[in-house]
Amino acid sequence: MTIPASRSPGGVFSARLSSAIKARRTAACIGLDPRRESLPPAFDATAITDPRVLADSFAKFCRDVIDVVAPLVPIVKPQLACFEAVGPHGMAALADVIAHARSKGLLVLADGKRGDIGSTAEAYADGWLAGPWAADALTVNPYLGLDSIEPFVKVAEQRNAGIFILVKTSNPGSKDFQDLRCDGRTNYEHVAAGVEALAARTAAGATYGAVGAVVGATWPKQLDELRAAMPHAWILVPGFGRQGGRASDVRGAFHADGLGALVVSARDVIFAHARPEMNAGLASGQWQTAVERACLDMIERLAADTPAASLK
Amino acid sequence: MTIPASRSPGGVFSARLSSAIKARRTAACIGLDPRRESLPPAFDATAITDPRVLADSFAKFCRDVIDVVAPLVPIVKPQLACFEAVGPHGMAALADVIAHARSKGLLVLADGKRGDIGSTAEAYADGWLAGPWAADALTVNPYLGLDSIEPFVKVAEQRNAGIFILVKTSNPGSKDFQDLRCDGRTNYEHVAAGVEALAARTAAGATYGAVGAVVGATWPKQLDELRAAMPHAWILVPGFGRQGGRASDVRGAFHADGLGALVVSARDVIFAHARPEMNAGLASGQWQTAVERACLDMIERLAADTPAASLK
Repeated sequence: MTIPASRSPGGVFSARLSSAIKARRTAACIGLDPRRESLPPAFDATAITDPRVLADSFAKFCRDVIDVVAPLVPIVKPQLACFEAVGPHGMAALADVIAHARSKGLLVLADGKRGDIGSTAEAYADGWLAGPWAADALTVNPYLGLDSIEPFVKVAEQRNAGIFILVKTSNPGSKDFQDLRCDGRTNYEHVAAGVEALAARTAAGATYGAVGAVVGATWPKQLDELRAAMPHAWILVPGFGRQGGRASDVRGAFHADGLGALVVSARDVIFAHARPEMNAGLASGQWQTAVERACLDMIERLAADTPAASLK
Repeated sequence: MTIPASRSPGGVFSARLSSAIKARRTAACIGLDPRRESLPPAFDATAITDPRVLADSFAKFCRDVIDVVAPLVPIVKPQLACFEAVGPHGMAALADVIAHARSKGLLVLADGKRGDIGSTAEAYADGWLAGPWAADALTVNPYLGLDSIEPFVKVAEQRNAGIFILVKTSNPGSKDFQDLRCDGRTNYEHVAAGVEALAARTAAGATYGAVGAVVGATWPKQLDELRAAMPHAWILVPGFGRQGGRASDVRGAFHADGLGALVVSARDVIFAHARPEMNAGLASGQWQTAVERACLDMIERLAADTPAASLK
């Protein structure tokens, strides 16, 4: 594909991410997972029957969230499934959301968990990292093997973007295949070895490469081990908050300087209007204030219990 | 999501697939992988700079292919990556292509290799199997574990749709993680055991369930073994033709009655204008005749070397 990227030039991904984290003094990443049944009451989303109207509501909701969090965090993570579920109009809304986040100075991590082989993998990489979507990074599923990851690495390097490869996911069922013991270590440790090799190669002497890992906040012990096993990899840590992970649980994902990890919260922040402690004293139309409170609360908890306080 | 499905009601997926295969007397599945650089010269696609125009060309090309193959094969498999690479306009083109295929009586297998957890997996399943895209089946990546597959199974059963789970993919790199030996058998054999359990459960006494497997045509020995290990699972076999798999290589994916497998060819059929033996004597505007020849050639080869001749 030769459709020109809309992303403005910048440093390599790891340097851009480090700068953004230092500028906001936090590694908090806000997940943008719009869901019809969870939108603030002001959107009256459960009454919408037209996919185009629902997609427009998703776009407006995410833009409004972005306006609140853009001064506070370095990066947002749109969940592609939520937009795909609304069909083509949902995908147009996603493009709008990505463009708005970028216009507000946020990095954008497209959470699609894509994976395929050869030219098909390259089509995904071109679309999400170079072409029309122009995200800064994409999550990638490793099951198909290292040759299936190389096209993503190639495009990421060409476009100063990054990829995050699933290693140990936050769900209980991650034990089924990821925890299988193969030749003395787990399947996910084999994947982690592949991630570290790619991270080191793309780091080319720098601290971090263009290839990172996804490790759930629900596995604090594994976070410690995987931080040590993948010194050149950024670790994206979902599952903070609603899925049970606490700030102390994600500490192991960080290096001592407060870098090396991104910690994700989605529903606890974007749907904070549904949390009594965040919504106290607010009228229905003030849901953005609840989002701001929840985002600040997350940042404070990360600062208290992780090396984020070391960020300068 | 409560957006109503556009798919008309019908039997359960396995029965619909069996009927369609018997009606066409072939298990050939045509992959719809539109690529700018491979479209017939009549489309002049390499000169297109506007994503909307490129998406329209992809839609027209796929509709034209569908018009040729609809009387010949039971099912088509759009490759989601090719449409995503063109951005939101590409996704609108994909919806158009799926609707056109259904209007011509074809089943539609959305090849997205999706995978995520909990409500996110359910959003993918709703979108592709129930909601706006309304495909008959979706490919799914198992790395996240069995609990990540359940939402796809639930929606598939509710909507009389199917899923195909990656087991052993056609690429050389499938050895990296799929072939790891874990507790006496390979990782992909563990996945296959999960597929068979889900297939048997959803079969509820019938021959096949709503859950199938993906096994590459490049692994004939494993196809034999996996056919035996997953008696209740349909096996989708990519890699026929261009990726090196021959008709004799895919024989093991079938049961003796000619059912149990779908064999995919994409580029060899849809871009047959580039194959001299298929394009002989044709003018540039007659590329659809080359597609028809290549589709018939694939069907003949499958009939000669697999149990497809047993289909009645």
